[in-house]
This record gives sequence, C-alpha cells and structure tokens, in this order.
Amino acid sequence: MSKTPLILITNDDGITAPGIRALINFMRELGDVVVVAPDSPQSGMGHAITVNNTLYVRKEKVDSGEQREYSTSGTPADCVKLAKHEILDRTPDLCVSGINHGSNASINVLYSGTMSAAIEASIEGIPAIGFSLCDFSWNADFSVLEPYVKLIARNVLDRGLPLGTALNVNFPATEIKGVKVCRQAKANWIEKFDKRQSPMGQDYYWLTGEFKNFDQGEDTDQWALDHGYVSVVPVHFDMTSYAALAQLDHLNSHNE
Amino acid sequence: MSKTPLILITNDDGITAPGIRALINFMRELGDVVVVAPDSPQSGMGHAITVNNTLYVRKEKVDSGEQREYSTSGTPADCVKLAKHEILDRTPDLCVSGINHGSNASINVLYSGTMSAAIEASIEGIPAIGFSLCDFSWNADFSVLEPYVKLIARNVLDRGLPLGTALNVNFPATEIKGVKVCRQAKANWIEKFDKRQSPMGQDYYWLTGEFKNFDQGEDTDQWALDHGYVSVVPVHFDMTSYAALAQLDHLNSHNE
Repeated sequence: MSKTPLILITNDDGITAPGIRALINFMRELGDVVVVAPDSPQSGMGHAITVNNTLYVRKEKVDSGEQREYSTSGTPADCVKLAKHEILDRTPDLCVSGINHGSNASINVLYSGTMSAAIEASIEGIPAIGFSLCDFSWNADFSVLEPYVKLIARNVLDRGLPLGTALNVNFPATEIKGVKVCRQAKANWIEKFDKRQSPMGQDYYWLTGEFKNFDQGEDTDQWALDHGYVSVVPVHFDMTSYAALAQLDHLNSHNE
Repeated sequence: MSKTPLILITNDDGITAPGIRALINFMRELGDVVVVAPDSPQSGMGHAITVNNTLYVRKEKVDSGEQREYSTSGTPADCVKLAKHEILDRTPDLCVSGINHGSNASINVLYSGTMSAAIEASIEGIPAIGFSLCDFSWNADFSVLEPYVKLIARNVLDRGLPLGTALNVNFPATEIKGVKVCRQAKANWIEKFDKRQSPMGQDYYWLTGEFKNFDQGEDTDQWALDHGYVSVVPVHFDMTSYAALAQLDHLNSHNE
C-alpha cells in the first residue's frame, strides 16, 4: 500500500470507554486514525439504526494524539454510515470496532453493537474487525492485547478480507496461547428475569441469564476462548440458511 | 397436534399498529393467541435487547377477541424473551411477528425489529415467522394477505421448521402470483444524509437512502417480490461465513 492507510475506529461502549482509547493507541502506528463513536454507551443495541430520529455529530478532543475524533448521538451502525457518507473524504482501508468489554462470541454476535458496526462496514465494502475482551471490568488490562490486535489488523490491511466479511475477534481474560480461526458456537443464554417492584408499586424486570454452550465442537469460538486462544470468526450478512432452503420446497406455489 | 396450538404474536411497529391487529385476527382461527408487543414503535431496532434498563409489562385490552395481550417497554427481542420466560406457562408452538409495514427483504433483515423477534424465537427453539408487506402506508390493505399468512403459518404448525430456522416472509404491494422459497438478495442501501440546522443553529442529520439490488439471481427474495411473488427466506442465527473460514488459515497461530 503506497498511501498511509485510513483507519476508522468505532465502538458501542461510547467514545470515552477505556477499550476504544486502547484501540486508538494501538492503531496510530498502523495508519491515519479517525474516530466516530457513540456519545454514550450502546451495549446490546444489535444492528439498530436511527430511522425515526435526528442524528448529531460533534468534533471531540478526548485525549492527546493526531487522530480526528467525532461523537454522534447514533448507534454503532449509524456511526459507520455517518463516517463513510458525511465525515470522511475517502473510504477507509479498515474499520475496527471495540475493544468491547465482555464476550461477543457465539450467539452474542447478534446482540452486539460492536459487531454490528463491523458488519455495517463490511456491507459498505470496508474490511472490518470487531474486538472484544471477555472481561467486563472497566479497569481491564488491554495492553496485553496490543500485539494480537496489531497482528490481526496488519494482516487485514495487507491481505484484505473476502468481500462482505467482517472478523469477530474475542480475547480470553486468561493468558493467551495463540490465535484460532473458528466458527460460531451453538450456545444460548438461558434467560431469567429478576422481577422487582418500584417505589410506586409497579412491577418491573431486569434481564439476566446464564450462558450455556451446547456445542461439543473443538472448532468453535467458545472452545477457543475456554482453552486460552484468541477466537477469530469470519461473519457475513447473508442470514439465509442454505441447509433449510432445500427442505422447504413444499412452501412453493404458483397461482393459476 | 392434539392440543390447540399456542401462538405468540409480536411486532416492531407497536401493539396498536394495523399490521399486528390484522395478524391477530388471522391467527385466532389457528390457535390460542397471546400478544406480547412493544408499547411504542421500534423500527430499525435490529436485534437490540435491553440490558442497561428496566422492563415494564402491562396487560392490555386493545380490541375485542379472546386473545390475551401485553405491552412491554422493551424491544421486539425483549418481548419474545419476556413472553417465554415470564408471561407464558408453556413454550409456544409458533411465534409470528408483524405484519410489518415496509420491506424486510434482502439486507433489511439485519435492521429489522420484526425479524429480530422471529430470530430470537428461533434461538429459544420456537418455530417462527416474520411477516412484512412492502407498503409503508398505515392504511395498507392487509386483508388480501390472509390466505397466504394462514397457509404459511398452518404449514409451519403442521410440519415445524428445521431447528434454529425462522422464516422471513415478505409480500409484494402488487397482485400476488404465488409463493417462492428463496435466498437473501445481495442488495444494499446507498445512504444519503439529509443535513439540516436546528432553530438553535446546530447541524443535524436524517438518514435517508436508496435501495439498490446488485444481485442478478432469479432465486432471491428481491427478484420474487419484483415479480409479484411472496418471498420466503429461511434465516438462521449462525453468522459464520464458512466460505471465508477456509481462506483465513494464515491467521492461525500457536505460541511456543
């Protein structure tokens, strides 16, 4: 690549979160960094976009460094759309999202604002990576991830990704043994609602639950994380179940 | 099936929307209906869930009929979780979501609250269908859809669906020629932001755009809709790109 790469950074924990500050720090060595991130936390936003409300964009100076930074009132997916179509002069060479606090492995990819930003970038034709650390602590140590984040990002900058693919990268909270490319595990949340009563006597609920891995495969992201590996799952935005397609012929009909 | 089927109905346009009222009306002939739907519109919510806020549930009586109805302060995916784990005594035999106003075909499946509810149900092991009519008008005529909605719902009640599959069903706004099982088209939104200024002099944006189908295939949902067919796409929640998996071996590493 002759020009300095342009790297777009976003997240779902908000522009001041420690995870995105670490990611900005790691990426500055790899290219010109522009940050476009939500002005407040957006966890669990899935692939939400703002269609019935207005969007604000504000230039920010959060800490030192050469990077340009903008906060928006939108979701992670909105941030990527705004960056590509309003804020940036050219299409970024890479979009990185995160580093998220908490796992986006397995079924969590569907609920993840971090990954929805990466998937949105892949829809826009931008090679994209979502990074998450399986540690909810706001004081988690991101510095040990630096060589892995850079290795994977450099690799994607050099080789690109298959069109329409984003990488879902998760880091174990334990010592790292290596990197494994894998598939999404078949695991679920077993939900439980914590029912409480407000001071005004109204019932309300908190969503809680327990994560259960039903997948015995050793080629899954959950297996990799449980065994100390960084998991890398290539994800795409084609939700079609091709396996099911062949089993539904009885639904086809043609009017006379 | 010996027992009367239990049918859970939800949507993303809110519990009073004409589309869900029509769907309730159609489903009453097929089983016992319980409605758990958002108390306000949730369009574009994707697979959002409420993790950082409380959830309220309220018993409702919106119109006549035997169905039990509840509104919630949550997203469509929240509604399904609340129904399964708090409101219902047994797992529903079918979950139907919609009828949505506007297309959920092609890439729209990712942004769709209607489909996220159906996909959430499929994660919970409930056969599920999301219905959408490609007509944004609040006065759209849903009655012409009745035979198709019932046909597809009966079919799923009788035969089930492959585990982990939900159906994304879209109706053209034109005369219906039949039903086609198909794959998700490779189509995109070409976004444009409409930039305006508030009375206080602050810039803001509205997300707009044009839908572009880049897919020449005649086996896609967009082709079916453009040619007067009801499109039925089986979708699953495994986002892994198996095609890309084989091309990323260079990312695997193992520490010494």
